[in-house]
Amino acid sequence: MHVIVTGGAGFLGARLIQQLLAGEASIEGQAITRVTSIDLAPCPVTDGRVESLTGDIADPDFIESGLIQQALADDTGAVCHLAAVVSSQAEADFELGMRVNLDATRTLLEACRAHPRRLRFLFASSLAVFGPGLSQGLSQKRSQPVPEAVGPQPRSSYGAQKAIGELLVNDYSRRGFVDGRVCRLPTIVVRPGKPNQAASSFASSIIREPLSGLEAICPVAAGLPLWLSSPRAVVANLVHALALEGEALGDWRTLNLPGITVTVNEMLDALERQAGAPARDLVRFEPDAGIDAIVASWPGGLDVERPLALGFQADADFDAIIRAYLEDEREEELDD
Amino acid sequence: MHVIVTGGAGFLGARLIQQLLAGEASIEGQAITRVTSIDLAPCPVTDGRVESLTGDIADPDFIESGLIQQALADDTGAVCHLAAVVSSQAEADFELGMRVNLDATRTLLEACRAHPRRLRFLFASSLAVFGPGLSQGLSQKRSQPVPEAVGPQPRSSYGAQKAIGELLVNDYSRRGFVDGRVCRLPTIVVRPGKPNQAASSFASSIIREPLSGLEAICPVAAGLPLWLSSPRAVVANLVHALALEGEALGDWRTLNLPGITVTVNEMLDALERQAGAPARDLVRFEPDAGIDAIVASWPGGLDVERPLALGFQADADFDAIIRAYLEDEREEELDD
Repeated sequence: MHVIVTGGAGFLGARLIQQLLAGEASIEGQAITRVTSIDLAPCPVTDGRVESLTGDIADPDFIESGLIQQALADDTGAVCHLAAVVSSQAEADFELGMRVNLDATRTLLEACRAHPRRLRFLFASSLAVFGPGLSQGLSQKRSQPVPEAVGPQPRSSYGAQKAIGELLVNDYSRRGFVDGRVCRLPTIVVRPGKPNQAASSFASSIIREPLSGLEAICPVAAGLPLWLSSPRAVVANLVHALALEGEALGDWRTLNLPGITVTVNEMLDALERQAGAPARDLVRFEPDAGIDAIVASWPGGLDVERPLALGFQADADFDAIIRAYLEDEREEELDD
Repeated sequence: MHVIVTGGAGFLGARLIQQLLAGEASIEGQAITRVTSIDLAPCPVTDGRVESLTGDIADPDFIESGLIQQALADDTGAVCHLAAVVSSQAEADFELGMRVNLDATRTLLEACRAHPRRLRFLFASSLAVFGPGLSQGLSQKRSQPVPEAVGPQPRSSYGAQKAIGELLVNDYSRRGFVDGRVCRLPTIVVRPGKPNQAASSFASSIIREPLSGLEAICPVAAGLPLWLSSPRAVVANLVHALALEGEALGDWRTLNLPGITVTVNEMLDALERQAGAPARDLVRFEPDAGIDAIVASWPGGLDVERPLALGFQADADFDAIIRAYLEDEREEELDD
């Protein structure tokens, strides 16, 4: 079976492709034998079964070239749509966010609809669909998990665009155009590499940089609770979401992926336990109102009873997340 | 002040235009002095202050003609966007629904964004944004009002497209592109005239036709609770939504308009009280699975504490709704 992954050159996309080809998922009982990555850059996974289609899925010329439609072959079973303009960037450039996060999602859904098979369509959404007003009429404590029925009231264009994508994937699924699965990702920590334009980028920086002996800046208050997941857990959950039979998900295809609730302070406590007090001292607090307005609008926890019952998983605790990051980094160094 | 009303040739649009010109609303302290109706047909309101722009707001040629943009004049203060493809029609013709309910909403929002003034943007949404799974994790009784925080999980393309419009209007408001107000309309009963392609069209037919001595068919079960409002109450609430200062609405601009919860049986009891048993006997039950699937997915009641506190109003009871309909019809006959 062939799978298409948009954003396949990115950190999450590349890891997802590795796992898919490692035999971690099958679709309708068939193994995944090849993957096409669609991204601005080629997929970094070195594997003969990976083909890279480079281009901008939001560019009308690229869409009209028909290359996306051609990538949807007879043996295609699923499309994993991870490509996105992240939160701070979508806030800074409204048009870019609308084009990539909304229009390109529609283009892909229409391409899938034209395919003779009902394709699985995995859409990466985000806890950014929520906003601070989400508990109107319910108990209003940021530290309490948000019930599954609570609706998106985003406070960022990124969140609004993701919430729109969720509705589209659900309606395309209901009509039988695709077999959709929407995963709302927690904030992913610890991301390797460099900071990106996500408002939550600091959550990785304040761990990653001190572990390398570098300074890091925290733009939010130490007491802010965050809803976190390791890259490992998120990728395992995306693979699980793709492999599940559609019937198991029921009529409404949007799932809050499991995470753990950790305050910034608790993150730094774990950093100190794993790497010592000097590492912690490398983190400096410099409030940034713009970032705080976005990140503090996200819930610190979600009710994930249903996803857990469906076999999705959460990390044990934040110390385990740091240890997993150190292990992964060590493996990558050995690979180099 | 000038106001644009899309769907101005429709039943609700025409009544809204009448009320706006009757001095029922002012914008930033200024009276409404002229209205432009944009619809496929000319606005039926005979008033020198009403101009009709006829065209299809979802037609690329009409959009590119620049007429919509030209209608947004120096004195424009608000756009009321009522034009829509209704529920059964959007279910039967997916492309048409997407084009009118989603793309045209975006076109209008962009046109407003280009205006030097921050225009009020009134968007008519619907209780159809809700679905049967909406109470997951909350108490699951269709007869209980749905809390305000519960999110859209539509079971129709109409509902999905309206929910997407809600998110767009909120994000455009948050960014300061427009000063938005989203009103989720209850099922409107009794509509005059002929049945339309809304799945809820029967709710008017089973009252209107018997009052004229005609047979009517009810496609849903007698015990189904509906969330209803009279045209008078809905139009008064739309005027109120337009006149309110944006600050009063807070950050989240979506409001459930008040309604009353009435079962089909209770509607027919009221019909019998107002017009006698022979009128009731004209209603025949013929279940229709397609209509039932859509209508029974809508909640029978919503929590409207906040809108009531903001001055929005509900009808007293269903008998009052029938009497108001009879009064309005009599007035129209006198006008003819």
